[in-house]
Amino acid sequence: MTTPISAQTLLTRELLARRRPGYSLEAPFYLSETVLQADMEHIFGKHWIFVAVEPQIPEPGDYIAVEFSNKSILIVRDDDMGVRAFHNVCRHRGSRLCESHQGQLGNIVCPYHQWTYDLSGKLIHAKHMGADFDPSEMSLKSVHVRTLGGLIFICLAQDPPQDFEQMVAEMTPYLAPHRLQDCKVAAQVDIIEDCNWKLTMENNRECYHCVGNHPELTVSLYEFGFGYQPSAENAAEQQRFVDITNAARERWESMGLPSAEIERLDDRITGYRTQRLPLDRAGQSQTLNTEVASKKLLADFTDPALGGLSFWTQPNSWHHFMSDHVVSFSVLPISAGKTLVRTVWCVHKDAVEGVDYTVENLTAVWNATNAQDRRLVEESQIGIATGAYEPGPYSPYTEGLVEKFCNWYVNRLGEHTR
Amino acid sequence: MTTPISAQTLLTRELLARRRPGYSLEAPFYLSETVLQADMEHIFGKHWIFVAVEPQIPEPGDYIAVEFSNKSILIVRDDDMGVRAFHNVCRHRGSRLCESHQGQLGNIVCPYHQWTYDLSGKLIHAKHMGADFDPSEMSLKSVHVRTLGGLIFICLAQDPPQDFEQMVAEMTPYLAPHRLQDCKVAAQVDIIEDCNWKLTMENNRECYHCVGNHPELTVSLYEFGFGYQPSAENAAEQQRFVDITNAARERWESMGLPSAEIERLDDRITGYRTQRLPLDRAGQSQTLNTEVASKKLLADFTDPALGGLSFWTQPNSWHHFMSDHVVSFSVLPISAGKTLVRTVWCVHKDAVEGVDYTVENLTAVWNATNAQDRRLVEESQIGIATGAYEPGPYSPYTEGLVEKFCNWYVNRLGEHTR
Amino acid sequence: MTTPISAQTLLTRELLARRRPGYSLEAPFYLSETVLQADMEHIFGKHWIFVAVEPQIPEPGDYIAVEFSNKSILIVRDDDMGVRAFHNVCRHRGSRLCESHQGQLGNIVCPYHQWTYDLSGKLIHAKHMGADFDPSEMSLKSVHVRTLGGLIFICLAQDPPQDFEQMVAEMTPYLAPHRLQDCKVAAQVDIIEDCNWKLTMENNRECYHCVGNHPELTVSLYEFGFGYQPSAENAAEQQRFVDITNAARERWESMGLPSAEIERLDDRITGYRTQRLPLDRAGQSQTLNTEVASKKLLADFTDPALGGLSFWTQPNSWHHFMSDHVVSFSVLPISAGKTLVRTVWCVHKDAVEGVDYTVENLTAVWNATNAQDRRLVEESQIGIATGAYEPGPYSPYTEGLVEKFCNWYVNRLGEHTR
Repeated sequence: MTTPISAQTLLTRELLARRRPGYSLEAPFYLSETVLQADMEHIFGKHWIFVAVEPQIPEPGDYIAVEFSNKSILIVRDDDMGVRAFHNVCRHRGSRLCESHQGQLGNIVCPYHQWTYDLSGKLIHAKHMGADFDPSEMSLKSVHVRTLGGLIFICLAQDPPQDFEQMVAEMTPYLAPHRLQDCKVAAQVDIIEDCNWKLTMENNRECYHCVGNHPELTVSLYEFGFGYQPSAENAAEQQRFVDITNAARERWESMGLPSAEIERLDDRITGYRTQRLPLDRAGQSQTLNTEVASKKLLADFTDPALGGLSFWTQPNSWHHFMSDHVVSFSVLPISAGKTLVRTVWCVHKDAVEGVDYTVENLTAVWNATNAQDRRLVEESQIGIATGAYEPGPYSPYTEGLVEKFCNWYVNRLGEHTR
Repeated sequence: MTTPISAQTLLTRELLARRRPGYSLEAPFYLSETVLQADMEHIFGKHWIFVAVEPQIPEPGDYIAVEFSNKSILIVRDDDMGVRAFHNVCRHRGSRLCESHQGQLGNIVCPYHQWTYDLSGKLIHAKHMGADFDPSEMSLKSVHVRTLGGLIFICLAQDPPQDFEQMVAEMTPYLAPHRLQDCKVAAQVDIIEDCNWKLTMENNRECYHCVGNHPELTVSLYEFGFGYQPSAENAAEQQRFVDITNAARERWESMGLPSAEIERLDDRITGYRTQRLPLDRAGQSQTLNTEVASKKLLADFTDPALGGLSFWTQPNSWHHFMSDHVVSFSVLPISAGKTLVRTVWCVHKDAVEGVDYTVENLTAVWNATNAQDRRLVEESQIGIATGAYEPGPYSPYTEGLVEKFCNWYVNRLGEHTR
Repeated sequence: MTTPISAQTLLTRELLARRRPGYSLEAPFYLSETVLQADMEHIFGKHWIFVAVEPQIPEPGDYIAVEFSNKSILIVRDDDMGVRAFHNVCRHRGSRLCESHQGQLGNIVCPYHQWTYDLSGKLIHAKHMGADFDPSEMSLKSVHVRTLGGLIFICLAQDPPQDFEQMVAEMTPYLAPHRLQDCKVAAQVDIIEDCNWKLTMENNRECYHCVGNHPELTVSLYEFGFGYQPSAENAAEQQRFVDITNAARERWESMGLPSAEIERLDDRITGYRTQRLPLDRAGQSQTLNTEVASKKLLADFTDPALGGLSFWTQPNSWHHFMSDHVVSFSVLPISAGKTLVRTVWCVHKDAVEGVDYTVENLTAVWNATNAQDRRLVEESQIGIATGAYEPGPYSPYTEGLVEKFCNWYVNRLGEHTR
């Protein structure tokens, strides 16, 4: 049987066919609820997406409910310290199981008629269902889940992309030394941006806008550290940054910390990029004074000046691992014009608030930066919605990684709608 | 001429054809605005729906405006004490006539250009319209209206279902002794539930959820009194309830109060069910202490322990007639995911607030129960919207009346879309 | 190549074909987002629309951003005192350029990556774009703009209607004596009405509703001065008004102020109407006491009793030019059911607040009238949305100009969708 081609697929194909390399995407990619549905089905529905860090669910029975678009996914720490993921929906009449976004539970009990599931998702109790009822057919619907260096990824598809394992193999040496699993959550901030999720991601993939907009971030961040290509215009500054980086890398490698760039943003299904980058001034952390925010360093680190190991994943996350803390960002669509950006800051689990760190100092740079970026992407959404927008040219010297995000997105969407 | 089949009809037919008996309905029945339009056209547009009680409009000129979905219907007490219903829309340029949801009027005067209609809907005054203008063609559009034991039903169709009269014949002996027409409104509470109207109705049609959720209601309500079938699991409790009921019924029948169950929920156009049920403990009223809320009993009752005569109608109401008060519920769709639930409490018109009753005590049980049910149905709406929901099995022992609601709904919708 | 006919065009054609002269428009004209899109494309997209008065941007670098539906248009006073209009959208990645609705700027700098345009719209600076980048292809998208007696009109089409010049020729003698260019803005009030923009316009085109609704306005306004046709019903009052008008006109003409009615509402592309009308009582201004609101008269006027020169334009404005102030209204659609009504009051630029005028007195009549009209049009929107509305007959004696608005609208829409 051949399924008729949906209007969604037709629109997606037409838009993909018209895409002009080197230019920003056409307006419907940001505005259309039909495209958002395609994004949910093919991008967020068939790829590994980052949703949480392990310190959010440290103990057996701890859970969080990750909610985006119309989805609600329970991420649970089970009794064997494994991580499990389920659709947060009762098999009886469909009630959401956990209303709270985080908590602790023994079993999972539906509020409606008290159907009760254990932490493996098995239905262990349901009153009044009679002798013919087979509870083994009524387990919670599970979701694929994998961890990498303390980061939790899920895949909503039946058959997840296989290449996640290659990313694990390649990235574990970079991430493992920071021991994110031994951290605790120091702060979490959710913001809702009135824009399409792709504008949030594109904003993350360039620092062309940093100098003009991010005074707090650029205290520690070298603008040239992120996605800049050499040009006549910036040759001297670029060279200075390369020299600084080479010196730092020699030191880090001698400490057993890998630092070389790995760039797989647009040539594989599970796309990502990593690089350990020097930080400016004291060179320790993304703080207002560039010194560590937490005196209790992560793992067995003794040197606070480890720069920042950055890890960017397609389609929806980025992370900065420093000597004293890890800051982790997930981007989750709510609708075509609304996006959840969740920022989680983790410090060593033995760090004491008020003694080793303060939340205000730890979060100052990224709270300010998020607020600035939010305004930028919301103004983009408004401008793109006017109808006067047409795709403009990317800077070949500063927006190469934005284009790689678009390449990955366009290729992956095309693969699933052809 | 053959009308082309609409997308609404095609979707409705497909969903109806896939319906699996014994299981809850598929998600689009609760989520789709297209299905809601079908519900409005075929269910709320072609059946008798409950909208008010007569004590809401006791005197000539009293009116209420019942508003749901995009409708606005004026229910008016005319000068001959009859009840009339009109579309609340001026025949000139379409202004709503009465902005307030209730009030008192002599004639109905449009605020825009003062076109004036009498209480029979006749246009009696319109300035500047000239000699060729025929006001007799510009009467308000009337709506069919019928009363039963003080309950007001309307039908928006040209040709209302005929079997309303059979319901009147059968139900009048049950309802008349309580003389709702001689009551006054003691309290009215409107809540907007963020769910489809069918979830509100299904919640009303079972008490499987009562023990786990309704501590206030189950003080007086026997869980087993509502829709339970005998099972091995509950045989002893069920038998105890049957014994209590039989004893009570003997007493009630001797007082001339009919109490036998009538169940016509899914085998006729105008579906309903009634039963006089014992109440627990003092057995008098649905209050926190199970004693009457109003010392002034209804009609000429002298015995406060009359249990509760319950009356459920398809598609949108239920009512409990007790010795001291009547509580009446209407369910009106606003959109696919939003529903108005209106609760009206009536006491004897000579009962004095603060002396014979207090509003707080009168409304305590159902205000608490409504709030609890609201959370249950809203969580169901959220869970069903996730996409992970699939229809689950109804309990054969406790959810039989939910299935009858679905049967009636599916049959009626099918009848009008085949 | 033939473009397939869109669903929008099909719906529009069907509705236009069904239109019944002498009757109000069918409900979808007010409710349908598809029709609103047609209105935006063909009415607001292809005609001259009024958006501002020159006193809103008196100095070089002054700008306002006019936002309606999804549009955002910059209206800028350039360095040569000319008025320019641009789409408020960066040519790089589409960000809105000016977030504020009014301000002052030297160049136009995009907040995102600091692309910089001069006041003629030319891109004069863009970092990191490389040698192959041609900034001359990246000027801001301009919008046609014309002024008439201090009123600013824009046209979003490539080829604006030519007949604007005839309106300029005909209207300049009426408007020029009031020298609006030499005024300052004394007050601006924006209200959002929950109704379709056409209901706002229709309300403006008749005074049938004035007596019943506008006690403040009718102190100075003669009901019969606006759109009334002689009828047996109002013959005496009508004649009295004609006598008053003739006496006033003789006086005005002797002062060089044209006063004869010009009525071109439905027989040309750029439709309009004008008339100098006497005011009641003191006859000076639309104030609560009918005397001037500003002691400093406009231009070189010495006689305060100049009545009110009214100027109505299709599709979206009306204006009253008096001896002491000008009040100007623009109507801009936001969505099918939401409309921006902007009222701007201007006085002589040398008038001193608190000495020559107070904002409260200046704005009292129209703030009250706007609030009353808002309720009327919102009640119309609600009534029309019920589904019980059907087009009703216009009064041949008081609603002739409403019908001319509909004629113009229907003809213009038909012209562009046939």
